[in-house]
Amino acid sequence: MNRTDSRRLAPLFAKLAAEELDAMLVTDLHVIRWLTGFSGSSAQVLLSPERCLILTDFRYTQQVAEEVTVMDSLIIGEGYAESLAAIDTLRGCRLGFQSDRVSVRGHDRMAEKLEGVTLVAVEGFFDEFRMIKSDLELRYMRQAAAISEQVLEKVLPMISTRVTEAEIAAEISCWHRKLGAEGDSFDPIVASGPRSALPHARPRHEKFRPGSMIVMDFGCICNGYASDQTRTFAFGDVPAEAREIYGIVRDAQQLGLDSARPGMEACRLDGIVRDYIVSKGYGEAFGHSLGHGVGVEVHENPRLSTKSSHRLPVGTVFTVEPGIYLPGRYGVRIEDTVVMEDGGVSPFQRYTKELVKL
Amino acid sequence: MNRTDSRRLAPLFAKLAAEELDAMLVTDLHVIRWLTGFSGSSAQVLLSPERCLILTDFRYTQQVAEEVTVMDSLIIGEGYAESLAAIDTLRGCRLGFQSDRVSVRGHDRMAEKLEGVTLVAVEGFFDEFRMIKSDLELRYMRQAAAISEQVLEKVLPMISTRVTEAEIAAEISCWHRKLGAEGDSFDPIVASGPRSALPHARPRHEKFRPGSMIVMDFGCICNGYASDQTRTFAFGDVPAEAREIYGIVRDAQQLGLDSARPGMEACRLDGIVRDYIVSKGYGEAFGHSLGHGVGVEVHENPRLSTKSSHRLPVGTVFTVEPGIYLPGRYGVRIEDTVVMEDGGVSPFQRYTKELVKL
Repeated sequence: MNRTDSRRLAPLFAKLAAEELDAMLVTDLHVIRWLTGFSGSSAQVLLSPERCLILTDFRYTQQVAEEVTVMDSLIIGEGYAESLAAIDTLRGCRLGFQSDRVSVRGHDRMAEKLEGVTLVAVEGFFDEFRMIKSDLELRYMRQAAAISEQVLEKVLPMISTRVTEAEIAAEISCWHRKLGAEGDSFDPIVASGPRSALPHARPRHEKFRPGSMIVMDFGCICNGYASDQTRTFAFGDVPAEAREIYGIVRDAQQLGLDSARPGMEACRLDGIVRDYIVSKGYGEAFGHSLGHGVGVEVHENPRLSTKSSHRLPVGTVFTVEPGIYLPGRYGVRIEDTVVMEDGGVSPFQRYTKELVKL
Repeated sequence: MNRTDSRRLAPLFAKLAAEELDAMLVTDLHVIRWLTGFSGSSAQVLLSPERCLILTDFRYTQQVAEEVTVMDSLIIGEGYAESLAAIDTLRGCRLGFQSDRVSVRGHDRMAEKLEGVTLVAVEGFFDEFRMIKSDLELRYMRQAAAISEQVLEKVLPMISTRVTEAEIAAEISCWHRKLGAEGDSFDPIVASGPRSALPHARPRHEKFRPGSMIVMDFGCICNGYASDQTRTFAFGDVPAEAREIYGIVRDAQQLGLDSARPGMEACRLDGIVRDYIVSKGYGEAFGHSLGHGVGVEVHENPRLSTKSSHRLPVGTVFTVEPGIYLPGRYGVRIEDTVVMEDGGVSPFQRYTKELVKL
């Protein structure tokens, strides 16, 4: 299965030239997967107009041959730096490296081994390219989203006063894999009662109690691409205040979807939704950003926050996930992952956003 | 639950003094968990005889208060470097940092923000301390091992010609959590038929076939500590050659357990087991090292390989996992995690090592 093709390389070479680099060393496994389709846990990629090469170790001899068709592969003997040092074409090069993905020690080793190579620290080299998804990437992301929606339908009937948050989280992970995903895109959040007011609560071994709100935030990885979704449910009869904030979050989320336009500033979309929640008196209770890009990483660019400098061009995939959290009582978050199209955004999720009582 | 205590700090301060450091910045989350019990996904620890401090962000305000009793905590406003810069006692200090856990960019940021601080690259500062487990750590590790053994008993009866490797892997993850683990310590390996000959095979959506060997290698995390175990099974009647290599691996693994003595060189234990497999004519087919340390990381020091310079003192926890892999046919691996005691090693696993036919 060839997840990428050589057309992806041309604009990267153009950027190399623009930054006066002869080659770029890729050490971030997410970028390597995006670039080559390789899914192993150890690799580096050398990118240059003359030669592209993926380096990995003996454990992945068969896998790299199966997965990577877009460039040659090299099985390293000793370390990566030693193998790079043996590549003649690198001599005298200006070699970019991902400064946020190479440790100080790793850099020192390279500097020692790669004689005659000028190492150049580079930040975010691939971000602009990764943000815009191809049709194939969108297909994978819709598949991942569909699996997680199936999982939601599977686990909702299991929720009762006899099971725990942790058990439902375990079922989510299990069903992700059973339905064909590679795994979770992050540890599932199943947070009920006062815990629903913690945006990053970890599931506990405690049973569900009637009258509580339940936030369920999870996603999976399919062909290397992540999904991400949140729905909030009422378990039994919940207080009027909980239903009220649910309605505000639902309307805010819909406003976000309706207001998104191709090319707009991410901070403006965050602002529109935030202003609405502020106008309802809950500004303080919406303590996180509106959303984030999704792709080979479940959190990637663009960032949809008050301070973001990103834009949202056609082909960008991101989440729209406002929330209101009342400490000690309950929280509500509703999240879709959407793709920006010519006329606005199209969500991957279809599950209702009306309040469902379990 | 206080997983650590202040007694762990004294030898670290002694090492700081010996290395002429005033303080050490810890950025590796595994070390932070080992040191403080904190299980969140973002933190740094500042370690000095004058003051120990854990820094984390607003998402973990409640969690850090619950989990960390051994030092004060500080919720950061902006970035970590900015928060560190505001700590008066750091001025004029020689501050060690983990050079394999700080990116080039992270280092540059610190260098910019921390005026008057001398940053000193340090490697493996905590390794020697982490290798020797306390009674409490051993208790957690035995718990983790016991959970994974329960999971093995749960999933073995599920194996049939109607289920896939991926489904069994999903059940393993699911049962780990249901039985109280935090999650898997690594993605479960369930490899059957020719795939059993790949030491790091990923479970596929293919059903089990009679007459194949099945390698099952998995573990979980319990109170922050990992377990790791492997057993190999015969699914139906398997060829005589498969039974033969099973017997060799079983005897090699037992030889490893019997030969281990406190304080011995890790490479010697690897050599004893390797020589035995070589003597049986399968030296080429045992392509990996004998084992590795286990603790808050599922792979940590000591390394039990031909080149290792580590020793195996009392209190060290490591795996003993020889294997024989015949490409295209089948593989066998048998693995226990053991603790070194005065008289030799004591395995955490109890499941039989005779060949079980499913």
